[in-house]
Amino acid sequence: MADRATLSELAKRRGFFFGSVGAYGGVAGFQTYGPRGASLKDNVETAWRDRFTLREGNHEIEAPTVMPEAVFDASGHTDGFDDMLVRCGECATPHRADHLIEDATDIDEAESLPTDEVETLLAANEIACPDCGTALAGQPVEQFNLMFDTEIGPGTGQAGYLRPETAQGIFVEFPRLKEYARNQLPFGVTQIGRGYRNEISPRGGLERLREFTMAELEQFVHPDDDGPSLSPVADVTLPLYSAAAQESDAGVRELTPPEAVKEGVVASDWIAYYLGVAYWWYDRVGVDTDRLRFRQHNAGELAHYASDCWDAEALIGADTTVGSEKTGGDWVEIAGFADRGDYDLSKHAAHSDERYTVFREYDEPKTVERAGVDPDMSVLGPAFGGDAGDVKAALETLAERDPDAFDGETVTVTVDGTEHTVDTETANFAVETVTEQGEHVTPHVIEPSFGIGRTVLAVVDHAYREDEVGGETRSYLALDPEIAPTTAAVFPLVSNDDRLVELAGSVAADLRSHGLAVAEDDSGSIGRRYRRQDEIGTPFCVTVDRDGIEGDGESVTVRERDTAAQVRVPAGEVAAEIAALTDPDAERTFAALRDDYAVVASDTEP
Amino acid sequence: MADRATLSELAKRRGFFFGSVGAYGGVAGFQTYGPRGASLKDNVETAWRDRFTLREGNHEIEAPTVMPEAVFDASGHTDGFDDMLVRCGECATPHRADHLIEDATDIDEAESLPTDEVETLLAANEIACPDCGTALAGQPVEQFNLMFDTEIGPGTGQAGYLRPETAQGIFVEFPRLKEYARNQLPFGVTQIGRGYRNEISPRGGLERLREFTMAELEQFVHPDDDGPSLSPVADVTLPLYSAAAQESDAGVRELTPPEAVKEGVVASDWIAYYLGVAYWWYDRVGVDTDRLRFRQHNAGELAHYASDCWDAEALIGADTTVGSEKTGGDWVEIAGFADRGDYDLSKHAAHSDERYTVFREYDEPKTVERAGVDPDMSVLGPAFGGDAGDVKAALETLAERDPDAFDGETVTVTVDGTEHTVDTETANFAVETVTEQGEHVTPHVIEPSFGIGRTVLAVVDHAYREDEVGGETRSYLALDPEIAPTTAAVFPLVSNDDRLVELAGSVAADLRSHGLAVAEDDSGSIGRRYRRQDEIGTPFCVTVDRDGIEGDGESVTVRERDTAAQVRVPAGEVAAEIAALTDPDAERTFAALRDDYAVVASDTEP
Repeated sequence: MADRATLSELAKRRGFFFGSVGAYGGVAGFQTYGPRGASLKDNVETAWRDRFTLREGNHEIEAPTVMPEAVFDASGHTDGFDDMLVRCGECATPHRADHLIEDATDIDEAESLPTDEVETLLAANEIACPDCGTALAGQPVEQFNLMFDTEIGPGTGQAGYLRPETAQGIFVEFPRLKEYARNQLPFGVTQIGRGYRNEISPRGGLERLREFTMAELEQFVHPDDDGPSLSPVADVTLPLYSAAAQESDAGVRELTPPEAVKEGVVASDWIAYYLGVAYWWYDRVGVDTDRLRFRQHNAGELAHYASDCWDAEALIGADTTVGSEKTGGDWVEIAGFADRGDYDLSKHAAHSDERYTVFREYDEPKTVERAGVDPDMSVLGPAFGGDAGDVKAALETLAERDPDAFDGETVTVTVDGTEHTVDTETANFAVETVTEQGEHVTPHVIEPSFGIGRTVLAVVDHAYREDEVGGETRSYLALDPEIAPTTAAVFPLVSNDDRLVELAGSVAADLRSHGLAVAEDDSGSIGRRYRRQDEIGTPFCVTVDRDGIEGDGESVTVRERDTAAQVRVPAGEVAAEIAALTDPDAERTFAALRDDYAVVASDTEP
Repeated sequence: MADRATLSELAKRRGFFFGSVGAYGGVAGFQTYGPRGASLKDNVETAWRDRFTLREGNHEIEAPTVMPEAVFDASGHTDGFDDMLVRCGECATPHRADHLIEDATDIDEAESLPTDEVETLLAANEIACPDCGTALAGQPVEQFNLMFDTEIGPGTGQAGYLRPETAQGIFVEFPRLKEYARNQLPFGVTQIGRGYRNEISPRGGLERLREFTMAELEQFVHPDDDGPSLSPVADVTLPLYSAAAQESDAGVRELTPPEAVKEGVVASDWIAYYLGVAYWWYDRVGVDTDRLRFRQHNAGELAHYASDCWDAEALIGADTTVGSEKTGGDWVEIAGFADRGDYDLSKHAAHSDERYTVFREYDEPKTVERAGVDPDMSVLGPAFGGDAGDVKAALETLAERDPDAFDGETVTVTVDGTEHTVDTETANFAVETVTEQGEHVTPHVIEPSFGIGRTVLAVVDHAYREDEVGGETRSYLALDPEIAPTTAAVFPLVSNDDRLVELAGSVAADLRSHGLAVAEDDSGSIGRRYRRQDEIGTPFCVTVDRDGIEGDGESVTVRERDTAAQVRVPAGEVAAEIAALTDPDAERTFAALRDDYAVVASDTEP
């Protein structure tokens, strides 16, 4: 891909994606997918579902995008989902204060600094408003919560938020989802849907949007789980850019998942496994694996609850025209793979009345000694009044934690800072021997989380090619047939010959009955029609010309996008041939067609 | 379906759908689709896309769900998208005032009454709060806007709303979409996505939600368009319940689309066409056409801009256990088909700076006389100061509307209530003869709009069956293989025989390679496993038993859901056989399998 402006112009002109609501001056952070983009995106989602839901044996659900405040109080989003905002005193434009610091200084992780320090740095570095040039010194820096808020119901005051990620819709329903998985760990739940972040400064295009599509997988595992077998992904070579390598400027290192675990580069087998699966998947949908890397979060970036996190990053906007060398471009995060421990389920367990655990039966029942109390409430009640219940609870906790405390004649507990002393006899302390069949465990979560829009951006960027056909420069998208918005386009050479139009219609119907996405086009020169399809990445064009309806039997030409080469194929066989060319399980290639059929000179080009 | 409680219990227990966020006490108006429901819903959406986008040659797009206020000012939603709210003075529960009136009186369309009349009616009919029984007399009735609102950007005050329908995301982008359609009418644009309405009293289940999925088609047509050919749908018999029939209690009348148009029951060919296509589609996804009708809006219901509107309604919750007679149940709106004229595009044209028209070339250029003015601003300026521009604009409008007004020596125009008189000579009035190549026309819109969640509800309700197998009552969902969450389930008879488990795994892999959704289950008795699959509507179960691995060659049993009949099929052929059974183009039936293979006694049942 040459540059982002070219890509953005093509995306708009050919109906991939464009800024929404242009008629009203646009609204930053929102993009609309046109017909080509919506189809491409749907193909990417279908491929994701096939790979991460069906083939992994996971369960997909669909939860609402609006959720009540209690969910985000538990998840920590109402408190901590902030970006640092500074507003220009002159033009009032809002900016990400941490980004301004990072751009102007050597500081890498300004996000983790306290706001007053950021204010000081803005002044000390004489940082000015990027829009109007006014100095930002003295402007307050505040934490701005990125969730879109709304109100649920009429005048109820019940706060609701647009989910910042699809994950909470899975976590919060864990008590039911585990039933569907029949209480067996590990199991995985997926969701594809919209997420929302009220970004302070959205970028253009699909890169940093306020509304976007994510595909997330929450893999619930037993805390002692050894991880999955890595043999299915043993031959994948992962381009790993570890935190240590970033620190020492060592660059990317290529390791298979088993090697990465063995050498301690990737701590968790689950993460290593999904990095391998993701590599396969990116390759399948058309992310150039030479422009893909997995970058580990360093200690400063890592969320406090996550023990490890790797981002998949794609190099976007690089100039690839000179040989295979890439210059320029940006590494853009397109997915994250996090080991979240028991953070999410523990939080919901603490904030709600439900149990976020799975009961795991022991191989053999265990006999354990359990210390407990059974306090005489007819004594505690008169003694402690309204606090009696709390005193009882405190005694129970103490019995579990420190049975020795009940050795004396009295025992003392603290409730809300006040000490209460109770006779040991009243507490009714006892140690019982009980047989336990199993235990309630809070599963850990491994979360691969994909940005679908950014994947679409990477796929289109990496598919972009320019070459010369018939003496003219052409640009085309080398999209895989599984992902291309249209698999085959069918053209009658001219639109005023009924025999050509009719045969074209019947070929198109044949192709559709093979489940292929077909476009028909009868307007403009045949060269222009080829260019149009090239630019939207249609792998094959079928042209019905006069040669094909004169002589023995009917035939059509099939043109391959990338080579612009053409062969003449019997009309009755063309649908099956193209279906075979696009079937990953069939081994048919266009080169084989050139052997089997007559090659046609590309005299219709350009 | 026997009753809604049974359906709701099954939906929850088997992972179709359930109220969201139960762990926090739930939130009315939001449902989560579990693994079965998400899969079923996705199949319904795919079938809709196939029918209304691909086969109709339409363009699908994907727009954001959050849109700025300007869009809804234009569409009329900020002003008019209201429901009538009354709040109980005692318990503060909000209610739909119009619904309370309709329930308590003979009034049908209380929604169209002014709020003060509704207040009077609440008092006069002594209507009480349904929750606590307190009289509502004296409580104010207000219009409550049903859009969820939010703010876009940090502290910008830029209001945004969650779209109440997907349509505005199409209408607002018309200037670009028409380019993709190369400015040729008619063309259709579709969208499948979430819509939001902050309902005053949401119902349970999927019926009236605050967040829901819609599939909409905006068919843009020339105002003089004669409509599509009705021959493709000529053999569909539409159950039509016209406004006149509702008025006269005449009941549903069955007419084909051409008959309906000819007899004037349906005014528009486009509406008649899409009613026919919808009928096909409902039949395909499993809405029982005996429980389907198309009901015309009467004058009171019709939006002021719509010239005609028909709802598709499904009878849900009817008792169908006694023969084919249906008792009880409610007719629930599951789609609408509206002729919206040029309302939507005209509104956006008036509110934005873009052109919402298509240029239509005449067959022959037309020579027309055009009256115009070219005022001398060096005279108008001094004479009218700041109003000079408005005076000029008023003169231009007048010249187009009433050229005769320029016959005298002076001409008078009114600007903001003040009359201004100008010399005709200064106005420079002239009539020119111009040649026009074509005209700019504002397309009309035909809008079929489907509720996907309600379709899912109807499909599950209509698929529910109870019968007796092996002396026990069983319930099952008679879902079509295209729609069923799982197409085939594979069971090793026991899980501790490696040969059975291995063969089951390889049969499952074969089935998946045919693109089928496959479940594997090795836990519990075989009868219980059959029941589980029956209840989620899996059409075929494949069991690997010992008989199948002893003797000549490997074989498995295939059980058909609806009859519980079983045949023994060679293991190597089972995937192709089931693929053929589920392919609508293949003519293979389970009855044919019973002829071709050995029928097995259902000794494993129940």
